Amino acid sequence: MTDTGATYTCVLTKLKMTDCLGDGAGDMTPMDLYEKLTSQGDTVRTLKTEKAAKADIDAAVQLLLKLKVDYKQVTGQDYKTGCPPSECAVSQDNGPAADGEDMVDPWNVSTTNAKGVDYDKLIVRFGSSKIDQELVDRIERVSGQKAHRFLRRGIFFSHRDMHQVLDTYEKNKSFYLYTGRGPSSDALHMGHLIPFIFTKWLQDTFDIPLVIQLTDDEKYLWKDLSLEDCHRYTMENAKDIIACGFDINKTFIFSDLDYMGASPDFYRNVVKVQKHVTFNQVKGIFGFGDSDCIGKIAFPAIQAAPSFSSSFPQIFKGRKDVQCLIPCAIDQDPYFRMTRDVAPRIGYPKPALLHSTFFPALQGAQTKMSASDANSSIFLTDTPKQIKNKVNKHAFSGGKDTVEEHRKYGGNPDVDVSFMYLTFFLEDDEQLEKIRQDYASGALLTGELKKRLIETLQPMITSHQERRKQVTEETVKQFMTPRPLNYSF
Amino acid sequence: MTDTGATYTCVLTKLKMTDCLGDGAGDMTPMDLYEKLTSQGDTVRTLKTEKAAKADIDAAVQLLLKLKVDYKQVTGQDYKTGCPPSECAVSQDNGPAADGEDMVDPWNVSTTNAKGVDYDKLIVRFGSSKIDQELVDRIERVSGQKAHRFLRRGIFFSHRDMHQVLDTYEKNKSFYLYTGRGPSSDALHMGHLIPFIFTKWLQDTFDIPLVIQLTDDEKYLWKDLSLEDCHRYTMENAKDIIACGFDINKTFIFSDLDYMGASPDFYRNVVKVQKHVTFNQVKGIFGFGDSDCIGKIAFPAIQAAPSFSSSFPQIFKGRKDVQCLIPCAIDQDPYFRMTRDVAPRIGYPKPALLHSTFFPALQGAQTKMSASDANSSIFLTDTPKQIKNKVNKHAFSGGKDTVEEHRKYGGNPDVDVSFMYLTFFLEDDEQLEKIRQDYASGALLTGELKKRLIETLQPMITSHQERRKQVTEETVKQFMTPRPLNYSF
Repeated sequence: MTDTGATYTCVLTKLKMTDCLGDGAGDMTPMDLYEKLTSQGDTVRTLKTEKAAKADIDAAVQLLLKLKVDYKQVTGQDYKTGCPPSECAVSQDNGPAADGEDMVDPWNVSTTNAKGVDYDKLIVRFGSSKIDQELVDRIERVSGQKAHRFLRRGIFFSHRDMHQVLDTYEKNKSFYLYTGRGPSSDALHMGHLIPFIFTKWLQDTFDIPLVIQLTDDEKYLWKDLSLEDCHRYTMENAKDIIACGFDINKTFIFSDLDYMGASPDFYRNVVKVQKHVTFNQVKGIFGFGDSDCIGKIAFPAIQAAPSFSSSFPQIFKGRKDVQCLIPCAIDQDPYFRMTRDVAPRIGYPKPALLHSTFFPALQGAQTKMSASDANSSIFLTDTPKQIKNKVNKHAFSGGKDTVEEHRKYGGNPDVDVSFMYLTFFLEDDEQLEKIRQDYASGALLTGELKKRLIETLQPMITSHQERRKQVTEETVKQFMTPRPLNYSF
Repeated sequence: MTDTGATYTCVLTKLKMTDCLGDGAGDMTPMDLYEKLTSQGDTVRTLKTEKAAKADIDAAVQLLLKLKVDYKQVTGQDYKTGCPPSECAVSQDNGPAADGEDMVDPWNVSTTNAKGVDYDKLIVRFGSSKIDQELVDRIERVSGQKAHRFLRRGIFFSHRDMHQVLDTYEKNKSFYLYTGRGPSSDALHMGHLIPFIFTKWLQDTFDIPLVIQLTDDEKYLWKDLSLEDCHRYTMENAKDIIACGFDINKTFIFSDLDYMGASPDFYRNVVKVQKHVTFNQVKGIFGFGDSDCIGKIAFPAIQAAPSFSSSFPQIFKGRKDVQCLIPCAIDQDPYFRMTRDVAPRIGYPKPALLHSTFFPALQGAQTKMSASDANSSIFLTDTPKQIKNKVNKHAFSGGKDTVEEHRKYGGNPDVDVSFMYLTFFLEDDEQLEKIRQDYASGALLTGELKKRLIETLQPMITSHQERRKQVTEETVKQFMTPRPLNYSF
């Protein structure tokens, strides 16, 4: 699972892109953009050197990042200092993102749309299906449980073959869950938890086995990290994942670097997928180019293989027909479109999918949440005080400039990051709706809204930290040992 | 290791290519060749349908194969029925083979040179070093053994860093051997034994550990075979390899499909190599194209990894600095040029190499020895009678058309396949030299020369078969179990 564009944590923008630029980026040539970027880089460096006011530096960095996104969109290339576009441009097919459309792949999420990524359009473009009220109702009916707030609120908004999974389940046949994470740092933030919180709910609700892939090999291939670092991040990240409360009797967590060397069946499925996918295909799907390393080119097969139950003979006793359901952020869909294309050709069922939207950065900006920027999100290691400060200082507000205006015109919850975070984490639907109405009417001030968020996050994070402390090395080892799981199929 | 162009068994031609064609292939357009090929294919089919004389069919097939080689050379593509060159042509870089030069890569060996592959030119083009008398003398001095006939007779003719290996050995530091085979069929022929016979001699002479890679994953990726078939061939081929007499205490034989799933250290080295090789590089080295599957593109890393001692922690106890020496046919050099390029960048010593020439097909022709054509070589399963018949009927002769002419002008041992086989298998230098002189003078007739070969091969093959019979499943399992080996470093 990739985390460069953060597996489950890409950034939703609610800022109007053209707000940042005096002129529309659409009119600029690659060379214009390159020059503007170079000059803006100089500006940022100068401000930093001169120890300018933090607000000024932030604004300049914001614009720089914005320009980089524009540059990538216009040229298909990452901006590199000293490397003008004419010299470096290589035509790349970045898949289905056409001009003016949102760009969503495992490494890039950006949009020119002032309202952020248009998820309905994404459903059409990716060819997936909307999770409509009918499906939510059916999940409730089949499981006998109230739907998770992520389903009720459209945070998991798209699916592939979920009806088929429920058909199977209704016939008393079971399925299994597969999710994952690319472990690129010690520090997980709130956004990283989304798929795990939801997956735990699915596991509890349907009482089924779960496999969690930690793609340390992928991080090694993509990042400037050693194998040892990537593996260490894996072990640390596993603790946070375990702290989400997964059932040790039904959950297998694995490092690719370890499991590939521990399971001939997993490798056999990797090779099967690798035989049935061409370079042309991964070029089209992932935008790989001729100068990419062969490890990146072959990697998609490694993320595909856990979709097949025969990759886990210790769990499924050699059965190759157990249906897989993958909860993940929508940016991971390209991997599984590829997997679903290959599956019937190698005699396996297609995995089903549940797609989530992206978790917004505190700034609500077009830039990614970054593990290296402590202020871009709430981290699982933050203290209550840090949480309070970050929300108060950095959470983008949909409120008005003065209390008077706010009382008069009301705030805009749709662009307010504090409100958005509450939609992720506040369980009570009525309370959330009341907050939304009060904020929109002006009855609730930004400070009060932020206070509600702080009071929601602080105990969540504190209790996560307490659970994590209780995860011993021994527990990690148990979760990560290939072994039979308890389930009744 | 590849065996499409037969890992160790590509074909040396001594036939003048233009002999087969009325006009020079160099003057023909791809479309001319395509049409000629299509028509020749029809001719062969007609002859077969009409059950024509075997000699006629053979001649027609010979020309068909010759045309296919020409076609591949001119277009860079394999001939496909119903697919004219203009529609199918994709520009490919097949590495260093320039126009008019021999083509030698892991899948193709061909030459337009009437004298066959020019090995001296190949040394220059590949940038390796000639195994000269000085090196042969030094090997004898350092090992205290008479050089193997393959060294004495220039069958192993090229090397990389062999002096460095000997320097190391003289300082009482050891090295290890790595060779392999692509198991694409049950049936091994004499040519497949060349690297193993020589490697056994090296193991006995230097008393060192040996790893033998059986690339069943590669065969699956390249051929229309199931994983199960490829793995079965591996187990069968392992028996023939063991029957060569390797020391069970010093030899580890492994299937990629099994060992990848049994050794996290092996996989880690594969990923390290994959990170440091781009698609551009494998395109240049191996001629891969955009329509190749991602498994092929990534495979070279899997053949590279056993060159590093840390891929075998059970043998080398985690040491990553033990020098590797790879005896192989020269067509495998591209893999190890790539490996030697990567090695220092990932902190490992470059493997040293000893390269052999190709083992000729009985017909001495430009076509490959083929496991599906029982008459193209002597197989390890042949009976004494089959050996006799094959040599008498199919071994290309350098003799004259009549006994009278032969007595008068003498035969040509340099193009005579029976004589060539004797240079591989007859141990006694004096006897071999006497045969050469007598054949060249006309004192020895072709029938007599063939008799000498038959008398040499029959007991060899029979005793191989006896040894193979004694290889039990238990023995295979022992050789193929990752375990410590006995050696003193």
